[in-house]
Amino acid sequence: MKVRELGEFGLIERIARRVGEAREPVVEGIGDDASILTPTPGYEIVTTTDMLIEGVHFLLEKTLPYDLGFKSLAVNISDIAAMGAIPIQAFVSLGLPGDTLVEDVDLFYDGILESASGDTQISGGDTVSSPGGWAISVTVIGEVLEGSALRRDAARAGERVYVCGPLGDSAAGLALMLGKVIVDDRDTKDYLLKAHNRPQPQVKMGRLLSESGVSGCAVDVSDGFMQDLGHICKASRVGARIDLEGLPVSPQLIQVAAEMAGADPFLWPLTGGEDYSIIFTVQPEGVNSMERMSDAENLKISMVGEIVEGETIDLFLDGKPYERPDEGGFDHFLKG
Amino acid sequence: MKVRELGEFGLIERIARRVGEAREPVVEGIGDDASILTPTPGYEIVTTTDMLIEGVHFLLEKTLPYDLGFKSLAVNISDIAAMGAIPIQAFVSLGLPGDTLVEDVDLFYDGILESASGDTQISGGDTVSSPGGWAISVTVIGEVLEGSALRRDAARAGERVYVCGPLGDSAAGLALMLGKVIVDDRDTKDYLLKAHNRPQPQVKMGRLLSESGVSGCAVDVSDGFMQDLGHICKASRVGARIDLEGLPVSPQLIQVAAEMAGADPFLWPLTGGEDYSIIFTVQPEGVNSMERMSDAENLKISMVGEIVEGETIDLFLDGKPYERPDEGGFDHFLKG
Repeated sequence: MKVRELGEFGLIERIARRVGEAREPVVEGIGDDASILTPTPGYEIVTTTDMLIEGVHFLLEKTLPYDLGFKSLAVNISDIAAMGAIPIQAFVSLGLPGDTLVEDVDLFYDGILESASGDTQISGGDTVSSPGGWAISVTVIGEVLEGSALRRDAARAGERVYVCGPLGDSAAGLALMLGKVIVDDRDTKDYLLKAHNRPQPQVKMGRLLSESGVSGCAVDVSDGFMQDLGHICKASRVGARIDLEGLPVSPQLIQVAAEMAGADPFLWPLTGGEDYSIIFTVQPEGVNSMERMSDAENLKISMVGEIVEGETIDLFLDGKPYERPDEGGFDHFLKG
Repeated sequence: MKVRELGEFGLIERIARRVGEAREPVVEGIGDDASILTPTPGYEIVTTTDMLIEGVHFLLEKTLPYDLGFKSLAVNISDIAAMGAIPIQAFVSLGLPGDTLVEDVDLFYDGILESASGDTQISGGDTVSSPGGWAISVTVIGEVLEGSALRRDAARAGERVYVCGPLGDSAAGLALMLGKVIVDDRDTKDYLLKAHNRPQPQVKMGRLLSESGVSGCAVDVSDGFMQDLGHICKASRVGARIDLEGLPVSPQLIQVAAEMAGADPFLWPLTGGEDYSIIFTVQPEGVNSMERMSDAENLKISMVGEIVEGETIDLFLDGKPYERPDEGGFDHFLKG
């Protein structure tokens, strides 16, 4: 069946059934003019939103509706995590051509619900006709203890720079998906494609950071490590010194780079976007406790350098200056 | 200049400058991974979102970017008002073709900021490339005193049905805009076009209702009076008896209907959408105090009927049953 045959209200009812009843702290989910949430006393409300357009952010012929749903929510949860907050509510708006299969919308919601993993409640949204292709807009609301949000302008010289989560795997997965790279090993291929299609937001890490008392600064890696670290440096008016050997580069990524003659193994980790890892800084005196805390939570973190005075990001490999590859990162209108 | 030349980050900076710094209760607006809001103790967080697609919700060649911005925010504020809440934050995501003029984006934000009227802060959003045309997604967050939200499932038999705001003017304005109706009188034309392009959300009325103690049920008129009252009836499992002579029909609308030979003067008021008026119910013993309170606030309200047992909406004109016109209302996929 096509969504045109089911109709807008039929589609909303179908989605509302899938999503289920609202539960605390959400008082009202789908069904009224707006949703209602009872905030936790002493907590702040953190909100983020992202829009994804067919043909720009994804190609329907290359992307499973399930993965599309999963990623649409995950990229927003990642922003919430990078604030040190816990996601609570998501609002999903879908613009769909009339001949979209209802089954594809169901699969999209399978992905949404998997990414929500029982914690984030789907509390509303909009479903509209979009003859030009899919348009997806997701908003996520979370909570963080008052005054504890992780800010990108909070980095100070002397703090250590850490990364939690992979760097470059998503870009390698995208290259695989687009046929720009060929990899024979099935496990490697699956791993990298999954990194691109089903990124895992670092919610647990973000929460640990905001509660740690030794870190106040984080961003998630959506545009690429260099560009996102650049956002911290610009907002905090500092520079950084990065030791490339510290970057969390997966064996799978190294394997692919090795198979590509002449490929710079740091190109993807430095400039590939959409990893949804977290870059954060830790006060020097907090380094030991941070490593202990993340160990205890089974969170793998990598120290990759240090915040310094100045405004440049300087890269080193084995102590020697490293010439950075093309700046990379994604600008929607310049390159889109 | 085109947005392609300015680039994504240039466009975001330009918008952030226009929007200005966050102020209480918003701690952080545009600029980090997410915005931060300090909720008022004892209040609930109310959230709504709407998506608008070029060619479906609006035609760029028929709509000023200013009006588009104004309406995109107004329709969301209207949902917040219909919950009895006060709007606080808005998140505006824009999908734009690369050759969109930056000037048009500026005008769009002029409309957004006018509609926000200094109360609703633009706290975030997304700007992305959308080769197929404009895609707009707006999310608004508001606050309402805990337990005081106006619900569509709260109507009870015996309660009076009221409307605040015009009915049918927006549909008449749309007909004018599309050239389906010709009106010579300039003032009438301006009035109806403005009703369609710059609807006024009933924020003050919504707040009065949620604080009144004699009303717990409201919806805004987005799909049309019959359909939106139908939403109340369905959710509350009641019917309604409506006296058409009570409907707030503007002299301008009556004038246009009179000029159209054979036009049913109630067609637009009953089935025209996008008025963003509020339909609400009032307990019988609260009718006097409600009329007094709205008078004191200079809010014009019209009693249009009564909630009854059953599940049908019955229309009467001067006490006699009235045959309702075509059900109308807008379904995105069935008619889109």
